[in-house]
This record gives sequence, structure tokens and C-alpha cells, in this order.
Amino acid sequence: MKTIVVGGVAGGMSTATRLRRLSTQAIIVVFERGEHVSYANCGLPYHVGGVIAERQALLLQTPESLQARFDLDVRVQSEVLAIDRDRRTVRVRDLTLGREYEETYDRLVLSPGAVPIVPELPGIKRALTLRTVADADQIRAALTDARTAVVVGGGFIGLETAENLAHRGMAVTVVERDAQVLGMLDPELADAVHAELSRHGVTLRLGANLAKVLPDAVELDDGELIDTDVVLLAIGVRPEVDLARDAGLAIGPRGGIAVDEGMRTSDPCIYAVGDAVEKIDATDSRPQLIPLANTANRQGRLVADAIAGHSVHLGGRIGTAIVQVFDLTIAVTGWNEKRLRAAARPYQMIHTHPASHAGYFPGADPMSLKLIFDPRDGAILGAQAVGGKGVDKRIDILATAMRAGLTAPDLADLELAYAPAFGSAKDPVNMLGYIADNLMSGTERTVQWHEIAAGATLLDVRTDDEYEAGHIPGSIHIPVDELRTRLGELPAVDLIVYCQVGVRGHTAAALLNGLGRNAVNLDGGYRTWIAGTHSGLEREPC
Amino acid sequence: MKTIVVGGVAGGMSTATRLRRLSTQAIIVVFERGEHVSYANCGLPYHVGGVIAERQALLLQTPESLQARFDLDVRVQSEVLAIDRDRRTVRVRDLTLGREYEETYDRLVLSPGAVPIVPELPGIKRALTLRTVADADQIRAALTDARTAVVVGGGFIGLETAENLAHRGMAVTVVERDAQVLGMLDPELADAVHAELSRHGVTLRLGANLAKVLPDAVELDDGELIDTDVVLLAIGVRPEVDLARDAGLAIGPRGGIAVDEGMRTSDPCIYAVGDAVEKIDATDSRPQLIPLANTANRQGRLVADAIAGHSVHLGGRIGTAIVQVFDLTIAVTGWNEKRLRAAARPYQMIHTHPASHAGYFPGADPMSLKLIFDPRDGAILGAQAVGGKGVDKRIDILATAMRAGLTAPDLADLELAYAPAFGSAKDPVNMLGYIADNLMSGTERTVQWHEIAAGATLLDVRTDDEYEAGHIPGSIHIPVDELRTRLGELPAVDLIVYCQVGVRGHTAAALLNGLGRNAVNLDGGYRTWIAGTHSGLEREPC
Repeated sequence: MKTIVVGGVAGGMSTATRLRRLSTQAIIVVFERGEHVSYANCGLPYHVGGVIAERQALLLQTPESLQARFDLDVRVQSEVLAIDRDRRTVRVRDLTLGREYEETYDRLVLSPGAVPIVPELPGIKRALTLRTVADADQIRAALTDARTAVVVGGGFIGLETAENLAHRGMAVTVVERDAQVLGMLDPELADAVHAELSRHGVTLRLGANLAKVLPDAVELDDGELIDTDVVLLAIGVRPEVDLARDAGLAIGPRGGIAVDEGMRTSDPCIYAVGDAVEKIDATDSRPQLIPLANTANRQGRLVADAIAGHSVHLGGRIGTAIVQVFDLTIAVTGWNEKRLRAAARPYQMIHTHPASHAGYFPGADPMSLKLIFDPRDGAILGAQAVGGKGVDKRIDILATAMRAGLTAPDLADLELAYAPAFGSAKDPVNMLGYIADNLMSGTERTVQWHEIAAGATLLDVRTDDEYEAGHIPGSIHIPVDELRTRLGELPAVDLIVYCQVGVRGHTAAALLNGLGRNAVNLDGGYRTWIAGTHSGLEREPC
Repeated sequence: MKTIVVGGVAGGMSTATRLRRLSTQAIIVVFERGEHVSYANCGLPYHVGGVIAERQALLLQTPESLQARFDLDVRVQSEVLAIDRDRRTVRVRDLTLGREYEETYDRLVLSPGAVPIVPELPGIKRALTLRTVADADQIRAALTDARTAVVVGGGFIGLETAENLAHRGMAVTVVERDAQVLGMLDPELADAVHAELSRHGVTLRLGANLAKVLPDAVELDDGELIDTDVVLLAIGVRPEVDLARDAGLAIGPRGGIAVDEGMRTSDPCIYAVGDAVEKIDATDSRPQLIPLANTANRQGRLVADAIAGHSVHLGGRIGTAIVQVFDLTIAVTGWNEKRLRAAARPYQMIHTHPASHAGYFPGADPMSLKLIFDPRDGAILGAQAVGGKGVDKRIDILATAMRAGLTAPDLADLELAYAPAFGSAKDPVNMLGYIADNLMSGTERTVQWHEIAAGATLLDVRTDDEYEAGHIPGSIHIPVDELRTRLGELPAVDLIVYCQVGVRGHTAAALLNGLGRNAVNLDGGYRTWIAGTHSGLEREPC
């Protein structure tokens, strides 16, 4: 049995090495268009920034090492030009020698990946993209005498690149089409990212589109000119499907190669994996492009199992992801509120602002957490976290719970490791479960930061100092600990109660409701409200 | 409805505050024998060591603050002496005024906690224990002029205390009855903890029992005298059940207060929570003492819900725990191998030694992971981890998976957050799943470090340098990348293949088996073997 793999990174190389471990006799040929295989492309921005100083560190394997260890026939600088499905052959161009030849296969695995999207704009040739080791080499060369940079695109790669350029001492501007960076976050969590970028000297141009690249500047669509030595484009990637399409393989509704649950394309002898293929979204069971390394590797292994004769099945994906932006960590899993709203799905939200570990132990970092679940059955739909230490842990726990089908109230019952340096007796994830239980049982009712109706009566139950440092305009102020004795000061209307993060507000609302008043708690408290309303833009003047 | 809570820490205070949020009208009285309520007892060792400098930081609430916020009637230095179940009253001694009085209840919640075990040995009165704020005060006073300390007991509290005393510059000896510290670890993982303690100057006396406490020394049962200024006793705790037993409440087989799934004692008007009660172990459904803060708080909340008329149910506990020992983090969940073997349960193990994040990104910490699962159905039975960064995360993910009923192979499919600073495209938890899948599908067969039969033929497939730095006595040595060309050198017998951590061994064994040989891989490689055989004690002389 002879298997040809097209693409020697992540999914493709996972297929090849796994297949060898399953079959000593199999003939396995890997074609890679570029110069390198099995390199760490998630490390490229850090090599550009010098955090990963040695380029060699990114090159995890070579054709020689793969030959020696796995008996793989790895051919780099070899582009597969066409597939002849009837004859089961591929036509290959050796880019070094300039010659073309055919290679037969019994099974073909396509792992061509994705390519950066480059809009057709004047001067765009000067803009650089970052996807391969060669790209990183080119950027590093371009940076030699550069002092200013514009990064177009505020997604994962864009912000990692921006941070790394700033790390090199460059003046960096990020141009982002939307009103916020990191579109996977809802706006009230993105606000902290904007602040972190600004704090580190990165200039943000939100709601702005690149119009033109000039020899030493870029022009935005509002006419603004930004002088810049280098232009980095990071507005997203599109699946590399030309080879598959030309061969007549089915392309899915999102523009990726269509595969079944066993990663088989419309040709039963051809599989496809990684960023080029569509996956099934766990939440709505629809095809999506989810270009993440974890799934690419998982698919690669499963395809090898399939070729070796095992039955395989890739379940729906939830799309967990994480990015570091200076001292902030941002991680997400599942769907966000924007997407749920667009899909008209019922959802309920919880915002909290816990510490990474027990507050009485030194060194805790603040964190903002958002959990979204289905109010009908408690199914976890998504989660977002922004903070320092412990963000990755909480999102990974939530991703595991989501994958396992735990409900939001089930989170209360998780036994998570507690010592003061690592968490709290009630971990932030447990607290999400406790709050979800309150909401689903009707013990607590909350209102979201964007749901406060004009004319609503707001009660701030924080301390005097907190109130004076900033509050929601028009709020009545009675600290929670004085509420019992000052009830008479409250007007006889429905109330929205709030504190800093939602905990005291919950206690105050419970007291008021217990006394026959009608009070709801502002979810996530003042901190969520102020972040949602964009750092005080709509805040009362001091 | 009047509820009396006995014990104002963790479980008891969770009950009281939750009950208030559920009922504005309830009468709630909390009796606490000590001077403080709701303090952070997990922080006490760090206050002793000065890491938590301010004693005040541990005192999370006061009777006054609880009165103001939750309308609780909290009475400290008030010991409940007896329960009259027929009359539904408790007799209370006010330890400040020295007077006694009765208080009636509709519902009674017992949260008396546990007390340190103190063996009856000569001179034992000089030994100090650490459970309350008063204990910490006493120890800090005793440390003023002390330069040497003996800590008896190498469990969580013992090691946290030892570290903190060393942190103060003291010469510390830990005396532990067993052959290893931290009994929840299997021995091959405890070895790294011994090394870490030694590296930080802590002297270990393993397999040693305290016989006598002398005015300026301790005597061990082998006659050894260890000079010491202070003696700390941390050999475990026993549930505080006197009050319950005297009242005729049922005591369970493990010596804790017996409660049903709703935390009700044998008297339907009396509940009990926290370290004093027995819980149901999730693995064997038997009662166990699991004195952990997470469960105490969970129980406290559920009891409040029960008193408020909700139906509650505490599921089986898996007992996740974590401890920091200098630069090492040690975390566990579920059962260990020792316990499974003693219970004669079928189990299969996986040892790995991954990095906390992608090796190509600076700053990764090494980690040792052990997963134990049921080979019949893949059910996760337990996990252990020792290392630096990321240990808490991996155990929390595994605890979540275990609680949710995921199988070991399911771990391969978890979508965990990957960026180079946080993990790997195949996270260490995914890798456990991949290996479990190999083992359950028969793709890989492994042997454990303690299962190598005398006379077995061992093949070391590491590099020359690795082999020369230490290997299993009598091993043949052929690096994995030379194996194909040097097959003729291998004797025609069954082989145990090993590398450093098990990855190359897996590849080598797969190759050999593919060629018709019979080869098994040494699980966890040389690193697990050497740790299991105690840091080279049985290793070939150089």
C-alpha cells in the first residue's frame, strides 16, 4: 500500500508518522512545496520578535531525520500540481530542478493548509504575510532597518505579530476593520485587550480599512496616512483548495475541502486534513473552517488509522483557542454571544471577575470570565477569559466540560485542585456553576450590562470609595452592609442592583427580594458594565 | 425557622451565608469554639513562613462583618457542649464569660471539622500542631529564637510547613513513617519530591517513627536523636465527632459522622458537613474521609439548599488535591496504583514526561504525568502529576474528565487551548489519550518499570550520550534511527524496548513488531524506571 501525503506540516506529518507506526511495510511519500517540513508555525511570530532566537528551534524535523526514524520519503520543494484520480497519480514539480514527474498512489492525503488572505489593493505587494518559515525570514530581513510597522488585522496572528514587533522596539499601529480586536471575544471582554495594547505603546485604528499601500506609508479608507517602514497583513487565511478543486473534489459551503466524519473527500481514495478542510461545529452541527493545530494533528492521526483499516470518527469541534497579548492572556472556547445572537439561539450569560488564586496569597492575577449556556437545559455553549495566570487552565477545564456534555450547573460540583497558590476553595469555574445553578433554579435573576433600560432605577451597593471612583449615572447609593437599616430610602419601584463584580449585588438583591421588593442583579457588576460601555465613554463626568 | 450551625469555618459558614441568601427571614446562629470564623486555614503554613506576612489577610470575615452583610448571629469562643435531640436544643459554653446556656433549633448543622492526630508519646506536649489561627500564633511565637525544626509527617501540611520553615532560614528535618513522602503519590513520582526537598536543604528521615520528644531533641524509634528547637506534628487529622457521638448520631465505618447523600445525619433535623463527615468515594462507592476544602464548601451550600426545601444530592468524590513543595507542584486526583492494587481492581497505567508547553518556546518546565485507567472500559481511575508550571492545569482537566465520565482514549479528542506559551498542539493530556487508545486497541503493548523480569532482554534506543549517562543494566544499545540497518545485531528473543520517556521506544517497538519481532515498550522510559528504582540505587556502577 502506497500513501502519498501532500503537505508536510501538522496534519500531513501526523498522518505520515502515525501511518508508519501502524505499518512497517507501507510506502509513504510526503510532498512539501516549501523548504521545510514539520516546523512550528505557531512559533513564527515569536521568531520574528526574537523571543525564539534560533530559527533552528522551529524546525522540529528534517527530511533526513524523518527518513531515519520513520522511513518516510519526504520531498521538499516539491509541488503537487495535479491529481489524476482515474489513474491514481499525482503530477509533481521539483522546484529545485525544475522538472516534473508522476507518482502513483493507493491512498492520497491532502494537507495543503491555508494561505493568508491578500486583498487586491494598490501597492499591496509591499505588504508581508506570516505563514511559513520563508515568510518569517523575509520579515526579519525587512525589519533590519525598520522602526515603524503597521499590522493590518487584529486577530491572533496580527496581535502576536504586533507584540513581537513592539518587543523589538518598533512603533506599531494595528489597523482593524471591526470596532474591536480579537473578534472571538465579545466587546466587554475585548476592552481590556485594547487597554493592554495601548499600555504597551501599540496604536490602535479600530473600524478602519486599509485602502492603499504606499512606498513609506499606508492609507486608510478614511484618508488617514500612517507612515510605516513595514506593512504586515494578518487579516485571516483561506483554505488552500486549488489542487482539490481542480481534481473535481467537492468543496464545502465555507470554501474548504468537504470531508466526511472519517476525513474522506468525495473520492474514497483521497482524504484531507487540517486548515484546508471543513469541520463540523459541535454547537450547530454545521460545517465550519476551524484552522487550529490541535484539530489538524488529531485529523492527521485519525486518517492514518483509517488508511490502516480502523474505523474512525471525528466529532464536532468547539474550537478552543488562546493568545498572549503582552501581559494578558485571552482564551475562548465554543461560541460567543455575537454568534449566538446572530443564530437566534437562546442563551444566558454569566460574567465574573475572580482572582487566579486565593486573594490572601500573594501574586494573584485578576481575570474576567464569561460563560454562556442554554437556559433550557444548562448546556454549555461557550466561554471567554481575559487575564493573567490561570486563564488557560479555566478555559481548558470549561472546554473539557463542554466536550463531555457537563451542564453549567455541573461546574459547581467539579473537584479542582486547591491550594492557595493555585486556586480557591470555590474555584472560579465552580463559582460559574454556582451562579448558573442560581439562575436556572430561579434563585437569582440578573440583567446584562447592555440590557439596562432607560429610566431603570439602579442601586449601587458598593463602598463609598468605590462609588466615588465611578458609578453608573443616576444610581442610588447604599452600601450592602447598610441596606437592612436604610431600606426606607429606596423608592417603591423595581431595582437593578449592582456592585463591583456581582457578588455583593447578589446578596443585596436576595435581601431585597426576600423583603418583597423586585430586584435583579447586574451580571458581572460595574466592572463588566464599564468595560462593555467602553472604558467610561458613556460615564458620568466626574 | 431557626438554624444553628456548629463551626464557623468553610462548610459551616458556607451553610450560613447561603441560607441567608435563600431566606431573609431565617434565624441563623453560628457557634465557633475558636476566636475566629471563616479564616483561610489553607494559608496557615504560609503565614508561619512569612509568605503571607499579615495575619489579618487570613481573617476573611468577622462576626461583625457577617452580621452586617448576612444578618448572622455569630458567636465565637462559644463551644457547643451537648445536643438534646428530643428538645432540639444545644448547650453552649461561652468561653469568655465561663457561663453556659441553652439555645433551641429547628435545624442543626454540624461543621466541627477535624483535629490533628497527636500520638501518646513521652514529651509529646512540646510538639506543636497547625490547624487554627491560634496554632499559627503559637508556632510563630515558638519560632522566634528557633533555628532547627523537626516536622513529623510528610503529607501536605507537613511539607508545606517544612518548606515555610526552611524559607525562614531554619534547618528542617522531616520524619516520615513510610518509605516516601506524600502517600497519595506512587513511589516513582515521589522520588522527585525527595530530590526537591534535599535540594533545598531539608533533611529526610524516611521509614522512621517518632518515639519520644525530649526538651531539645526528638528520638526516633531506631534510637536516633535529632536535636531540634521546635517539633511540628503533621501526621494527619481525625474527624471531630465527640459532639455527634455523644448525641447518639451514627458514626460511619471510617470514624466520621455518617450522613446520607443530602448530608443528613441519622437525626433528620441534624445535618453535618466538612472534614467531620464521611463522603462517598466515586471510584468504589464506599464511605471515605476526604478532608478537602472544596467539598466542605460544596456540602455547606447544599445543606443550606436542603434546609430551604430544595432536593440536594452530593455525588461521589474523587478527591483532587495539590501541594507546592519549593519549585515543584504535585497534584493528584482519584486513586493511585497502591490503592487500586490493594483493592485488586484491574488497572492500566501510562507514564509520560512532557514539557509544560511547546519545547521550542522558552521557559517550559518538565513534568511527570501518570494516568491510571480501567483497561476493560477505559474509565479514568486516577492521575498524578509532578513538575512546575501547568501541573495544576493538567490535573484539573483530568479531574473534570473523570467527573464527566470521559474515558482515557476520549482525552485524545479534547480541544485544549494551544499557543506556544501554554501547551502543545498535542497537549500532554491529549497525548495520554493517544497512548490509552494505542493500549486499548492493541496498537501498543507496554511494560511497567517494576515489571521487568530478571533475564529479560532490554533494548535501549536512545542516543550514545543518553546511554552513557546511565542505562538499565545489561541493555543492548541501538539508537532508534539506526535500528532498521542494525536489526541483525539483535538476538532472536522477546525484547523490552526503552528510550528516555517512552516516545522513541514506541516507534522502535512498532518497527520491531512490524518486522515480526515481539517487542514491548517500557512505559515512561528510562526516566520512570530510574525514578521508580530510587534515583539509581540499583543502577549499574559507572
